[in-house]
Amino acid sequence: MRANLTPDSDLAARLFAALHEKTFDGIGITREAYGPGEQAAHDLVRATAEGLRLETAIDAAGNLYMTLPGRDRTAKRIVLGSHLDSVPRGGQYDGAAGVLAGLAAVAGMQAAGFQPSRDITVIAIRAEEAGAWFPTSYPGSNAALGRLPPAALEIRRLDSGRTLEDHMRAQGFDPDAVRAGKATLGPDNTAAYLELHIEQGPVLDAEAIPVGIVTGIPGSRRLRAARVLGEYNHSGATPRRYRRDAAIALAELAHRLDDHWGALETQGHQLVCTFCVLATTEEAGFTKIPGEARFQLDIRSVQPASVDAMFAELHRLIPRIGARRGVCFELGDESHSDASLMDSSVQVGLARAADALGIACRAMPSGGGHDAAAFAQAGVPAGMLFVRNQNGSHNPHEAMRMEDFAAGCAVVTRWASAMAG
Amino acid sequence: MRANLTPDSDLAARLFAALHEKTFDGIGITREAYGPGEQAAHDLVRATAEGLRLETAIDAAGNLYMTLPGRDRTAKRIVLGSHLDSVPRGGQYDGAAGVLAGLAAVAGMQAAGFQPSRDITVIAIRAEEAGAWFPTSYPGSNAALGRLPPAALEIRRLDSGRTLEDHMRAQGFDPDAVRAGKATLGPDNTAAYLELHIEQGPVLDAEAIPVGIVTGIPGSRRLRAARVLGEYNHSGATPRRYRRDAAIALAELAHRLDDHWGALETQGHQLVCTFCVLATTEEAGFTKIPGEARFQLDIRSVQPASVDAMFAELHRLIPRIGARRGVCFELGDESHSDASLMDSSVQVGLARAADALGIACRAMPSGGGHDAAAFAQAGVPAGMLFVRNQNGSHNPHEAMRMEDFAAGCAVVTRWASAMAG
Repeated sequence: MRANLTPDSDLAARLFAALHEKTFDGIGITREAYGPGEQAAHDLVRATAEGLRLETAIDAAGNLYMTLPGRDRTAKRIVLGSHLDSVPRGGQYDGAAGVLAGLAAVAGMQAAGFQPSRDITVIAIRAEEAGAWFPTSYPGSNAALGRLPPAALEIRRLDSGRTLEDHMRAQGFDPDAVRAGKATLGPDNTAAYLELHIEQGPVLDAEAIPVGIVTGIPGSRRLRAARVLGEYNHSGATPRRYRRDAAIALAELAHRLDDHWGALETQGHQLVCTFCVLATTEEAGFTKIPGEARFQLDIRSVQPASVDAMFAELHRLIPRIGARRGVCFELGDESHSDASLMDSSVQVGLARAADALGIACRAMPSGGGHDAAAFAQAGVPAGMLFVRNQNGSHNPHEAMRMEDFAAGCAVVTRWASAMAG
Repeated sequence: MRANLTPDSDLAARLFAALHEKTFDGIGITREAYGPGEQAAHDLVRATAEGLRLETAIDAAGNLYMTLPGRDRTAKRIVLGSHLDSVPRGGQYDGAAGVLAGLAAVAGMQAAGFQPSRDITVIAIRAEEAGAWFPTSYPGSNAALGRLPPAALEIRRLDSGRTLEDHMRAQGFDPDAVRAGKATLGPDNTAAYLELHIEQGPVLDAEAIPVGIVTGIPGSRRLRAARVLGEYNHSGATPRRYRRDAAIALAELAHRLDDHWGALETQGHQLVCTFCVLATTEEAGFTKIPGEARFQLDIRSVQPASVDAMFAELHRLIPRIGARRGVCFELGDESHSDASLMDSSVQVGLARAADALGIACRAMPSGGGHDAAAFAQAGVPAGMLFVRNQNGSHNPHEAMRMEDFAAGCAVVTRWASAMAG
């Protein structure tokens, strides 16, 4: 292993600028999954990789592979990367940072004349932003892993109304091969997948730490269409004991559940609990006691037991509040996703790389989902490195500093070269 | 005094049916203030009064007076009545019941050959439904009392956009005289004003009591455009200690204020407290911690000290919750109305009349505002009699039973004949 290989951060900086120029929509960055914005990013990245004389390939789903060949072409490869699509009017760094970090790492290795012992492949994944385009989990990386459920090909893009299959075909890809489950990557040929990503929350910035080593991607239990039903009545003429006030019942539920979260956290649980929507309905108005309210609830943790503890409290509170306040809670459908723990040896390797480089880091759970979850679910050892970022993600104000990105790239490079030394 | 004069409930029943026929809009009753619906009701009631050979008169604001002359025309008169406008798609009984009860009372006196010692005037008041038409307090009755602020004539009707002055003039009335403050009624010429009205809440029905004697019309302090400002953040990626969650802060405020209401009630306070609107804003959505929420708060009591106690608690809670949760409360403009106590001798008179007739009754505060408040504020002894009603008011399902209305009319008739015996 060669110490202190320097990633080519300048290359990445030029690519950030070029990507911005090609996909800035006047307000933010828009790179539609399987649309012109994402394709423009893939074209730019591919051309850069070809300029670096990396081996490039595209799979049936349009994922792009850019490989620095290793001495042993049959050894399990290392994969570095992330996605190139963005939410509408999003920021520059969500997704792209992971792909460009991979390119910076292998370009740095090339420049230093470092030939890895095994292939190092930079991957640019398709269609990760499920909430913006195709509401299904990680279609790009799951297709690469041969694990995309065929039904996912029928899912329609939220803006175009056309199916994932249609969009793939229109771009010249091969949805039939995707449906057949042909895998490009998997535990048999991939030693590890590492995804650098901007942190989407404020923790690293608040704690003045440039990088975070992700312990896991949380699972969740979610209510998207829950309601509280009471009775509309005159706000002046209805005494307390005759009320069936949906808004106050919901306020009590939210406040008590939030208290329970605080108590669990004191006991050492790590989780988040958010009433994303909490609202009286359109019929509300002055002189009316609210007869209906609705809410969305999002509870996440890397530890399923923590999520379940919150739902147990929810189900304990609801009948009590309902009986006391004369309201009825209708929770609607609950959606669920499994937590994905990051591989512990990858976490250890990242921590040792950061230590060797003198870069401060901390362990932390991810908040949102990432392609690394698909790799972990497929049995590929997966890791994530978060880079400090201001102003959150999915907005035009993402503000990762280049020196923090360079620190992240240095950790990625050192880790990868250690894995392939 | 002649005992047990019988009100002409059949006359009232025929008028309810005729009013329904003229002003049913296909869903409910619509009698726009200073519009065709209200005018149709005035025309019908006036024609009926003329058929009864009552003296009729119309004041500068279009209020209709229908007088059974007394032996002493110079003695202070008794006024019975209410308003004839309705909210859009409202019910049959809100307002109309009080006018028809007055007509039933004087028709019953006529039929029995009872001549009162003083004039008994039935009044049909204009434009009481401020929330639906002209958002100002009691323009019709205040005009009758010579107390309408001139600025109120500039207020525009919510649907037409035209001013109260325009509407008065279009109907042939005299807004200049209204502006000059010419009073038709006042403490100098009015012994008492009594308004029968359907109860707008569920108390009488729940307690199986046909009539209620109103102790007062509540004053209020209200916030119509209050906001909580926090910060939008990723619901997965933002740990508890970094959140500035506007929705949970509002839920805590609402729940704690509701608890305080419960505590005050236990101490004997009578009041109501309603978060009529309590809502995250349009920007809310899945994976976002709400950065903003809004609320409307309506606190009412006949006792100003009870309202003030709630606002003191509100102002105690806000800085604490704000500091702990990193949010800012912007209460916006506060509106205020004074409580109006009903005259105690009228209350006593009504209770004695009910007792003499063997009709169960209870004392209770009003919930909403009524024209009786304008009379009380003007110094005219005022009283209200509530009649049991199902399904609340301001909706097509108002369901006062005719036997309860007849009981209310009997109390009104006995009280008025005692006052004018």
